[in-house]
Amino acid sequence: MTSGPIRPTDGSHTRLRPATTARITDGFWAARRRTNADVSIPQGPSRLEEAGNLANLRAAAEGKGTFTGDFQFQDSDVHKWLEAASWQLSDSPDSKELAAHIDELTALLAAAQDESGYLQTYYQVAHPELRWQELGWGHELYCAGHLIQAAVAHHRATGRRELLDVAERFAHHIDATFGRDKAIDGVCGHPEIETALVELYRETGERRLLDLAEYFVERRGHGVLSAGADRGHDPGPAYWQDHAPVREAPTVAGHAVRQLYLLAGATDLAAETGDLELRAALERLWDAMVATKTYLTGGVGARHEGEAFGDAYELPPDRAYAETCAAIASIQWSWRMALLTGEAKYSDLVERTLFNGFLSGVGLDGNSWLYVNPLQVREEYDAGPGDQTARRTPWFRCACCPPNVMRLLASLPHYVASGDAEGLQLHQYASGVYAAGEGAVRVETAYPWDGRITVTVEAAPADRDWSLSLRIPSWCPEFTTTVPGCEPPAETGVGWLRVRRRWSRGDSFTLDLDLVPRLTRPDPRVDAVRGCVAIERGPLVHCLETVDQQPGVRLDDITLPQGSALTFTRERELLGGVGVITADGLRRSDGSDVRLTAVPYYAWANRREGAMRVWIPQS
Amino acid sequence: MTSGPIRPTDGSHTRLRPATTARITDGFWAARRRTNADVSIPQGPSRLEEAGNLANLRAAAEGKGTFTGDFQFQDSDVHKWLEAASWQLSDSPDSKELAAHIDELTALLAAAQDESGYLQTYYQVAHPELRWQELGWGHELYCAGHLIQAAVAHHRATGRRELLDVAERFAHHIDATFGRDKAIDGVCGHPEIETALVELYRETGERRLLDLAEYFVERRGHGVLSAGADRGHDPGPAYWQDHAPVREAPTVAGHAVRQLYLLAGATDLAAETGDLELRAALERLWDAMVATKTYLTGGVGARHEGEAFGDAYELPPDRAYAETCAAIASIQWSWRMALLTGEAKYSDLVERTLFNGFLSGVGLDGNSWLYVNPLQVREEYDAGPGDQTARRTPWFRCACCPPNVMRLLASLPHYVASGDAEGLQLHQYASGVYAAGEGAVRVETAYPWDGRITVTVEAAPADRDWSLSLRIPSWCPEFTTTVPGCEPPAETGVGWLRVRRRWSRGDSFTLDLDLVPRLTRPDPRVDAVRGCVAIERGPLVHCLETVDQQPGVRLDDITLPQGSALTFTRERELLGGVGVITADGLRRSDGSDVRLTAVPYYAWANRREGAMRVWIPQS
Repeated sequence: MTSGPIRPTDGSHTRLRPATTARITDGFWAARRRTNADVSIPQGPSRLEEAGNLANLRAAAEGKGTFTGDFQFQDSDVHKWLEAASWQLSDSPDSKELAAHIDELTALLAAAQDESGYLQTYYQVAHPELRWQELGWGHELYCAGHLIQAAVAHHRATGRRELLDVAERFAHHIDATFGRDKAIDGVCGHPEIETALVELYRETGERRLLDLAEYFVERRGHGVLSAGADRGHDPGPAYWQDHAPVREAPTVAGHAVRQLYLLAGATDLAAETGDLELRAALERLWDAMVATKTYLTGGVGARHEGEAFGDAYELPPDRAYAETCAAIASIQWSWRMALLTGEAKYSDLVERTLFNGFLSGVGLDGNSWLYVNPLQVREEYDAGPGDQTARRTPWFRCACCPPNVMRLLASLPHYVASGDAEGLQLHQYASGVYAAGEGAVRVETAYPWDGRITVTVEAAPADRDWSLSLRIPSWCPEFTTTVPGCEPPAETGVGWLRVRRRWSRGDSFTLDLDLVPRLTRPDPRVDAVRGCVAIERGPLVHCLETVDQQPGVRLDDITLPQGSALTFTRERELLGGVGVITADGLRRSDGSDVRLTAVPYYAWANRREGAMRVWIPQS
Repeated sequence: MTSGPIRPTDGSHTRLRPATTARITDGFWAARRRTNADVSIPQGPSRLEEAGNLANLRAAAEGKGTFTGDFQFQDSDVHKWLEAASWQLSDSPDSKELAAHIDELTALLAAAQDESGYLQTYYQVAHPELRWQELGWGHELYCAGHLIQAAVAHHRATGRRELLDVAERFAHHIDATFGRDKAIDGVCGHPEIETALVELYRETGERRLLDLAEYFVERRGHGVLSAGADRGHDPGPAYWQDHAPVREAPTVAGHAVRQLYLLAGATDLAAETGDLELRAALERLWDAMVATKTYLTGGVGARHEGEAFGDAYELPPDRAYAETCAAIASIQWSWRMALLTGEAKYSDLVERTLFNGFLSGVGLDGNSWLYVNPLQVREEYDAGPGDQTARRTPWFRCACCPPNVMRLLASLPHYVASGDAEGLQLHQYASGVYAAGEGAVRVETAYPWDGRITVTVEAAPADRDWSLSLRIPSWCPEFTTTVPGCEPPAETGVGWLRVRRRWSRGDSFTLDLDLVPRLTRPDPRVDAVRGCVAIERGPLVHCLETVDQQPGVRLDDITLPQGSALTFTRERELLGGVGVITADGLRRSDGSDVRLTAVPYYAWANRREGAMRVWIPQS
């Protein structure tokens, strides 16, 4: 049995449960996960060494030395890398080097941990007098959360307790410190502890951890944070999710990653407690996010300022922040919602985000990153200073995104399938083997380049009917399926193609999703892309990059005439093998024809620098 | 003789010289200036007292106490208020209360000044050990610049030297400290000292002050600033105009106010030195700004983040920063360019900015302010925390804009007219009396509501021909004029209607500018407002506000059909008396007709809160 993030307890109220076996063996995501395993994850320890993160841990362990790095939350990069490495280890259990790195960092964390259980090198090394004194900007519970998540991953992947012990000690220290009648009655400026505590509860069964998670979720949003006692500026309550309780918030707002980590934690909580009011609030917030504050790429967080959600329909393509971490947070939250409710729409967004606004965050080389993921870059783009540039960068001063990408790719198989008493659900399409309950299937597909998905039953209950459910993507105009020996047509629900029958090992059928390229119009209330269309095919958003166009073509000079035909070709040598869509456009400057070539958005910014745009003006 | 900002020396290389007399006596701007004199300026001292600015000066004077306020540059609010009050005093010389406040603050500044001549309370009271150590974020030369400008204004307005003495002592201290071979070879993170030193040179004749200004202009843009030694974060070189020397910069970039204060100073320098290469660079930068980085309102600075210019054509209406101070800086720079070159286009931008993106910065009550001036606010606008909200605020934590508005309105008459050896030029249209050289005119007009401008000669050379030049605005489709006894038609140049003849006192003629309402289309490269039009009339940009529309109409649901007629009416009771433009629009949701009502943009956000938009989608 493989095991990933989100393992609801037996008593939990999720409609679906994660697959018990989930292995991606081939195809699109297997290739990206191989790069993650071979390039991205292995570079982690040296990056963390160079950036000073490991020196900070040694300084804390030895009780001497200075703190390196610009941020209080430097430790979280280590934690997130450890989580990624742990998930990866369950895929590559024979990797001695990876195991050794994990052991080394685990030992370092154990050595750095304070006797009390506290562990955050910034406040151990640089400012011990300010421990727990700067809840707004301090990121102490945030770092604790990532440490706990790493420990849970390590324990699930290896069965070993070294890191779990560290995490439990810290969690107990937090539980002894925080609460309505305890030393500190407050929350952290950056959510993350909530989901982590629920996961630790799931791993250890300690009920007080769930209660503590509930306390943090409920205590938040009541204006308890301020920058007053801190040394930082006051970003306003929405920034750190202190503006409204989850139950009452009308829409997603404020810092996107904080908002979505919080909602992921609240969803974990609702799954374990069965709190229907909280669940209803989460459904409302998710719907508002998707209807009014989500980019075509699945990216979220329209504003650079405050890394924040904008107002409804404020979705500028050029200044889209759409932080890679926010895409990851969206995927993590949506997957929890999919399990909680069983609704296919959540995994629909997961797919859109995975293939577009998330995957653009890492270069095809696995070694270059985007912190922000805009949908347009102009010819005379001023790349500017800092991490938030639309040019790929080897690492970041604020290195939250790279290890976040690593942990998502390493745990990706667990987002593909689920099970319930009735059968097995396929949420995503990736060649591999997935099991849930008494059944198992093998999936073979060249998705997203080809729309054919072949499902073969490897195991099924022998004595009763069993359901296989396949998500029909919302973008899909038409599909066909062959279900062997099934007389009545397949029963279809909203988003799910559900086939319920007596299955035998070896039964096989295909689902064909129509991948005809299409032009997508925006909601007319999205002012920033009025009069434009986007090219899509299957789950992939395409974009124009200067490098693919005829010499001299400027992307601020082209339009796409109404009714222009889209032609798809597979280019196996380009960008690691992609599908390309071409169309006949016009130059605005002289009215002349121009052939436009659109590549998948996820692959942009991997060649020479130039302009890019997803939304194309129509003429 | 009245005297305002910008008084080029006799040897300067400006094409035009400011009017020697400039009084606005009636009409639109007289009313706004009355509110400025009666409401805005008088509230200054108490605001500065409440915000702690005056306490800081007392603390510095007494050598004890703590620093109040969030910014190193708190003193500059005092300086800018003193400048405003001084210009106002030349208009209202009998205001004993105003004079008393000026004397009080002047005495306070003199008492606070260090023996060395240094004066900035933050580094005197809070961090004496860091004086001149934080050039990036410290704002010391910036504050010095505003102090000098206040002193120059005070001296020009009253002939008194108390504040000028303070400014000179500080300037001499700076001159003794900064330079290639002096203690500090560097520049300030926020330009302002450059223009101030040229003005002080003009007032005192001390050549070394001009040389120091030149040093600061030339030393800048060579990457000399860093946040390394500072306690602040590194905003990148463009933020503090350290990315490229003025001579080499291809376009305006970085923090908009810093950029434009610098360019104003460089223009002053070029005016005094006759440096043609510098002048050419300034012309190039101005053209780039207007063609690619200026809003329809004249507002500049597209980005909240870094309060900065965006890329070319990056002009979002909703997230427009368009800081009030940046509009003021643009006006100050453009007026200097108008004097330097004699070209009408610079005053054309001054007019557009004055009537729209500048004037929106102050409420009709003279007592409520906007820091940012967006061109769109949605129905579900999240006003957010801090100064940068599109809701009027009584004062700001960072109170740069209010006294800046006060000083511009107080000195506004000096932006109306100029003179040269040939005659007198009218750059703006405001009822009043303007003199230059041997001539003087009286202007009577109900502009901008009415297009008739009546010019009566009050004095002219008796023995020779003399020119009267009137700017024909670039927005003006057609104009007519009556020039008494003038046989040949008036000679017209680009932007100037020039009438050269023998004039007698009492000669009078009219210029009629066609104010027919018009629809303006954006440059197709401005992605954010594609498919939209704006309603304009004369120099005024109009906008839709929810409060003026039929009940229940949402501004995100309306379109304007092609060919829709515009109807102008004068509403004397509305918003202090404005012109209103109506048009027949459509509701997108149900296709029904809707009457749209557009008020002048400058008057927006003075009634109940709601949505607003300048750019209207066409159907």
